[in-house]
Amino acid sequence: MAKRSFWAWGHESDEPTAEQMKTAADELSKRYRVNLDPVSPPRPSDISLRKPRISPPSSLAGICVSDDHDRAVHTYGRSFRDRIRAFNLDFPNPPDVVARPRNEQEVEAVLEWCSSSGHAAIPFGGGSSTVAGFEPPDGYDGIVTIDLEGLDQVLEIDDVSRSARIQGGVYGPALEDQLRPHGFTLRHYPQSFEFSTLGGWIATRSGGHYATNQTHIDDMVESVRMVTPSGLWESRRLPGSGAGPSPDRIAIGSEGILGIITEAWMRIQARPVSRASAGVTFPTFAAGAEAARRIVQTKLWPANCRLLDPVEAAVAAGMDGTVALLVLGFESAEVPQGEFIRHAVDIARDAGGTIDGANIRVSDGSKNSSGGDTGRQGSVGAWRNSFLNAPYVKNHQAGLGFVTETMETAVTWDRWANLDQTVRAALQDALDRVCGGGTVSCRFTHVYTDGPAPYFTFEGMGRLGAELEMYAEIKQAASDAIIAAGGTITHHHAVGRLHRPWYDQQRPELFAQSLKAIKRTLDPHGVLNPGLLIDS
Amino acid sequence: MAKRSFWAWGHESDEPTAEQMKTAADELSKRYRVNLDPVSPPRPSDISLRKPRISPPSSLAGICVSDDHDRAVHTYGRSFRDRIRAFNLDFPNPPDVVARPRNEQEVEAVLEWCSSSGHAAIPFGGGSSTVAGFEPPDGYDGIVTIDLEGLDQVLEIDDVSRSARIQGGVYGPALEDQLRPHGFTLRHYPQSFEFSTLGGWIATRSGGHYATNQTHIDDMVESVRMVTPSGLWESRRLPGSGAGPSPDRIAIGSEGILGIITEAWMRIQARPVSRASAGVTFPTFAAGAEAARRIVQTKLWPANCRLLDPVEAAVAAGMDGTVALLVLGFESAEVPQGEFIRHAVDIARDAGGTIDGANIRVSDGSKNSSGGDTGRQGSVGAWRNSFLNAPYVKNHQAGLGFVTETMETAVTWDRWANLDQTVRAALQDALDRVCGGGTVSCRFTHVYTDGPAPYFTFEGMGRLGAELEMYAEIKQAASDAIIAAGGTITHHHAVGRLHRPWYDQQRPELFAQSLKAIKRTLDPHGVLNPGLLIDS
Repeated sequence: MAKRSFWAWGHESDEPTAEQMKTAADELSKRYRVNLDPVSPPRPSDISLRKPRISPPSSLAGICVSDDHDRAVHTYGRSFRDRIRAFNLDFPNPPDVVARPRNEQEVEAVLEWCSSSGHAAIPFGGGSSTVAGFEPPDGYDGIVTIDLEGLDQVLEIDDVSRSARIQGGVYGPALEDQLRPHGFTLRHYPQSFEFSTLGGWIATRSGGHYATNQTHIDDMVESVRMVTPSGLWESRRLPGSGAGPSPDRIAIGSEGILGIITEAWMRIQARPVSRASAGVTFPTFAAGAEAARRIVQTKLWPANCRLLDPVEAAVAAGMDGTVALLVLGFESAEVPQGEFIRHAVDIARDAGGTIDGANIRVSDGSKNSSGGDTGRQGSVGAWRNSFLNAPYVKNHQAGLGFVTETMETAVTWDRWANLDQTVRAALQDALDRVCGGGTVSCRFTHVYTDGPAPYFTFEGMGRLGAELEMYAEIKQAASDAIIAAGGTITHHHAVGRLHRPWYDQQRPELFAQSLKAIKRTLDPHGVLNPGLLIDS
Repeated sequence: MAKRSFWAWGHESDEPTAEQMKTAADELSKRYRVNLDPVSPPRPSDISLRKPRISPPSSLAGICVSDDHDRAVHTYGRSFRDRIRAFNLDFPNPPDVVARPRNEQEVEAVLEWCSSSGHAAIPFGGGSSTVAGFEPPDGYDGIVTIDLEGLDQVLEIDDVSRSARIQGGVYGPALEDQLRPHGFTLRHYPQSFEFSTLGGWIATRSGGHYATNQTHIDDMVESVRMVTPSGLWESRRLPGSGAGPSPDRIAIGSEGILGIITEAWMRIQARPVSRASAGVTFPTFAAGAEAARRIVQTKLWPANCRLLDPVEAAVAAGMDGTVALLVLGFESAEVPQGEFIRHAVDIARDAGGTIDGANIRVSDGSKNSSGGDTGRQGSVGAWRNSFLNAPYVKNHQAGLGFVTETMETAVTWDRWANLDQTVRAALQDALDRVCGGGTVSCRFTHVYTDGPAPYFTFEGMGRLGAELEMYAEIKQAASDAIIAAGGTITHHHAVGRLHRPWYDQQRPELFAQSLKAIKRTLDPHGVLNPGLLIDS
């Protein structure tokens, strides 16, 4: 099994070469008119951590490790803050033990050990959190991170109901590999797909591939099985129910504070064969937004309906910097999609969009099909490649003082224009103040009938060694603006430690008290992921 | 305002005439080969209730009443048990006071009175519960039923986001009347539409008009405002969020035990103008089920996809008793629906269905349209009329010893055939044992990609005076079978007092404990709808 990088996105083999780091330094030097010297990335042998303060009971020793590399990999996710700290070998509070249970009984045993000893128990999925979702808490004498990678199986496929019973620790690619021979797919593709797990998706209310209709993992869950310190929580497999508040909707989004999701029955689907795609340009982001709104409100349910502002359309899809780009995609296992995309394009044109008819690509196995590469050509294909490569590109830019991050939200359409304006202004103002300038851009990753999910990217050239403070000031300004403008602090990245201050402002206070009451019921010793969502 | 009947479905003007009751008695006499004498319905002047045991504080006297008719109307819903008891003037435990707050402050004041005095506080929506959802509890010295009918306004319409802020007490027709001038509709049509409210739909996780895709009220809620004894619970308006477990999903389905839903922002939509419908017959219910499964799994998202078994197809849609009927309907405000229905019909035919091409009705404003009465002609129109009239027909059959009820569930497709078989067998066996025979039938009211929502109807001729015991035995047998076969005890009728024993079997026990912990947080004196969902 490939070894994960302790600082970069991906495996050690994904760490940049000296040549790649030089190219990135040259590129950023040119962009920001500075002289940046490329640096050498840290090596695993450079890691030096606090000694483990605890050791597992002998019954668990066989599934626990405490070596520095493993503990470093389990300290941080992959946000900007995380990558900077890891790159700088700054690991003041690593877990003491990494446990890798191979079955549910071992999950229970690890939780029992933590509960009886008062150790913090931190569930760990794929390690790609961008919100410090599994970062160890301060103030604990012992920290046990529970890596679920051993629970990696699709246990059962019900092909008549199109459901599968799947273990929580399976990574995206391995999950799809196990469904593919049966002709099925979960078709949940967050950008972190390669380095995230089913249990992580459920615990964080991950948002997936689909830009419209059922896109959050919430809607794909048929039932959940969760080990808590108070015992097993398992809901009944049901296609729909009206029996009291939904138990699953407590587990979904619980971010590891209530239990460890060991299994779930998930709604799967036939693999799509009919596809259609189109990239429509607009003179302004606002015009594209109006088209996206009309398309989603007609309930055509495109699989892809992503809008890139002119900055992102230039960077990600090769546009000229003056136009916004609406990326449309339709797909189905059984229904030809040509009529759908033509209808969506008609709406987009009516809203001021431009597309050459020949650039509407339809692949449905018929004679008029434009071939199997629908969605992988032209501006749509360029966007796709950029989307998949984005996390890796950041690896090359490490160690240069560069400050960059993405932030997502969701807001109703009536408030969108104001949110767009005030968040951009807050980001630009903070970048100007902190970095002496920088770039702000935005795209819609998802659209709902009642509002979009805008996704902001900012970047500026900071000072090496001061990036974290500079980042914190920019992030705070934008987060304050998001909350003030009526948005959510997170649409699909979860809350984690990073978003707690703003999460506390957006939720009902009585809900926070209710969540505490649930926490006391399921985790009476308060050992599970302390400090997430509520104060411990 | 028309006065509600204290025993029949509807208003006093909907109570049956002597002629109608005679016709029903004759019809049932013929069907069951007995001689039934029609009876006279009870009159309001026949009601004699326990004297009110409490009186409101003077500050609330203006919004409280304690007259017998009002208290009788607020004692029972409209299940079989309820109608029998009300018809028999059997009201041993009516509420003492009916409060009608006119605004949120008065809701708070009533709850404060109940909390400080230890009176049970029972939220009341439209009064059409079939599960004893607002029946007063035993063991309380004072019972205050809180009728929300005064909170009946659409307060705000956001036409760009297609959302509306609506008060919880508004009835279905009044809600639609207020949206219609703006070109919008909530388009949530439970069978109880006339006598149910927005707040009631949310509190009971009502299932609506749509047979597929977003159909439960859950998916239409953008945010909820709920008055609890501990204060106000209000969620942020958001089109989507990944911020912790959903607060709304605690309020939705809470059946009045946590608070009173005073307002909600709801997702609304443009009024449909394009419609298509078709009624496809099948040689067996199972063949029709296979067609329904394939149609929903293709994700064509029909608005209507209801399957009637041969018994129901005969009674409700004029079929000959040998064929099942699949009622298909598509609708859209903007997209012509002809292609969709033809595709669905192709799938249905491929699964063994029969329909004459001329009976596929499409109305899309085009020249080829079959006119504005799509869905109101032929077998589909017959089904529609029967669906709307069903609750009224039961009024005519009162007082004759007739035992009849409907029961719904949902189950995954892999378990459906077994559930269908065992629940029918349990019902038939119980009817044979208890009534010396009777009829069982079933339809699908909703279908999901992973399973249908079967809806059973049973009837038999019981003994006058013993109907309730006979009913209880039949209901118990079927409910046990539903739970044993993997179904839910309720798909859209809620839990109430009626379904508690089976609800307790289907939910995770740790969820029950969590719900108790939430209840203690929001309703520390335990006054709200005691005994619902959890023990008080």
